Amino acid sequence: MSQIDPETVSSLQERLSKLEAWARRLSDEQEICRLVCSYGPTVDSGQSLAGAQLWTDDGTYESDLIEPCIGQKELVALFESDLHQGLIRAGAAHVMSYPVVVVDGDRAVATNYARVYRYEDGVFVPWRVVASRWECLRTALGWRIKRRINAQLNGSESARQLLGRFKEP
Amino acid sequence: MSQIDPETVSSLQERLSKLEAWARRLSDEQEICRLVCSYGPTVDSGQSLAGAQLWTDDGTYESDLIEPCIGQKELVALFESDLHQGLIRAGAAHVMSYPVVVVDGDRAVATNYARVYRYEDGVFVPWRVVASRWECLRTALGWRIKRRINAQLNGSESARQLLGRFKEP
Amino acid sequence: MSQIDPETVSSLQERLSKLEAWARRLSDEQEICRLVCSYGPTVDSGQSLAGAQLWTDDGTYESDLIEPCIGQKELVALFESDLHQGLIRAGAAHVMSYPVVVVDGDRAVATNYARVYRYEDGVFVPWRVVASRWECLRTALGWRIKRRINAQLNGSESARQLLGRFKEP
Repeated sequence: MSQIDPETVSSLQERLSKLEAWARRLSDEQEICRLVCSYGPTVDSGQSLAGAQLWTDDGTYESDLIEPCIGQKELVALFESDLHQGLIRAGAAHVMSYPVVVVDGDRAVATNYARVYRYEDGVFVPWRVVASRWECLRTALGWRIKRRINAQLNGSESARQLLGRFKEP
Repeated sequence: MSQIDPETVSSLQERLSKLEAWARRLSDEQEICRLVCSYGPTVDSGQSLAGAQLWTDDGTYESDLIEPCIGQKELVALFESDLHQGLIRAGAAHVMSYPVVVVDGDRAVATNYARVYRYEDGVFVPWRVVASRWECLRTALGWRIKRRINAQLNGSESARQLLGRFKEP
Repeated sequence: MSQIDPETVSSLQERLSKLEAWARRLSDEQEICRLVCSYGPTVDSGQSLAGAQLWTDDGTYESDLIEPCIGQKELVALFESDLHQGLIRAGAAHVMSYPVVVVDGDRAVATNYARVYRYEDGVFVPWRVVASRWECLRTALGWRIKRRINAQLNGSESARQLLGRFKEP
């Protein structure tokens, strides 16, 4: 046994703190990727409540395809609607590209491309290709979607603008 | 030089242990993502043996398209078959979406969407869009596929069920 | 207060060093994924300079579709060209699959599938499906693309070879 330099201890503590900060950031980014990529398996398998619970209680979903949804109750109604149920019963896949994630404290934004494939007459058709912006919040239950905005990449300026804001949380 | 509080040391050790557990979990998830996303480049480039070795020795592959493959020998035969070789010689891409991964000790499941594009008459056709469940095992060589199950998203209940089990390792 | 075993300290230091090496590797891989997946949102939103700056000053882009681009100035010109501007104004999405990344010191390679969807007559067409090899360098500004090579997966041997080199940085 021998004595130890307090410098050594404070250096160890500093290295640990750096690693912990790094681990927190990476954990956040990974959890947000998982949130986004869970959307497809959840709603394509018909789990409407679990789909809505990817959002915060008052979370919103805006898309050119539908009226804006506000809150989990309206989200459940969307996933139970004839539109969505008809889609998945005929064969559909909501495929998310790996998002670019920017975290700012307890807020974050993930930006990606979402595609909806429909099975029609024995072939798969890329029915929709949208830019998707997922504004997320850290909650007691983990990261949740506060606001999702979709814009079809059909040449509109607004879709390009949405996509271009990928670094702004 | 001075003496040090043993509390300080045990606190450092505790923080380190937490970080190590976190690093192990994240490493596992990342290695499994890599395993899944290596499938395309491996089999689309015609590396049949390397493709089979993504599985365990006795690993299986079940798909509506083919007879079940059991073990690496049958997997090599699949990748050497006219079906697969014809596909890649005519132009094909096996594209994996980023999987949702759930690790439970030495077992894990990854769930994603796989698409097979075929080059036909000068255009690319999304020939197959399937839900894919990859049941993995930790082996001495790293994570390997124990069982892969594909289900076309053609509206069948079984495909929706497969997709819906994404949280069950 | 009490004395501490120097063995304890050196064991703590060793565990920290391992974690730091691990964190560096994972950070590298994640930053490279982000670099590749930023390409779409950057160029599809018309940010031509930011698009070019994903490359090193002298970075290159080789594709069957275009003359080789050498350096950021030629890359800006590509993204400002009628080809690219016409594409995004009519509606387009450059969607990247999650790449397989191999890091070797200050060099790395990422390999993935890139798809370009075009919006044509009210539907989305998977216009191009290419194997993409991203050779990257660590720079003072972070990881940057030194060389990107695309090959259409149209059955050519060269495309399969490009894809097959995914483990060679």
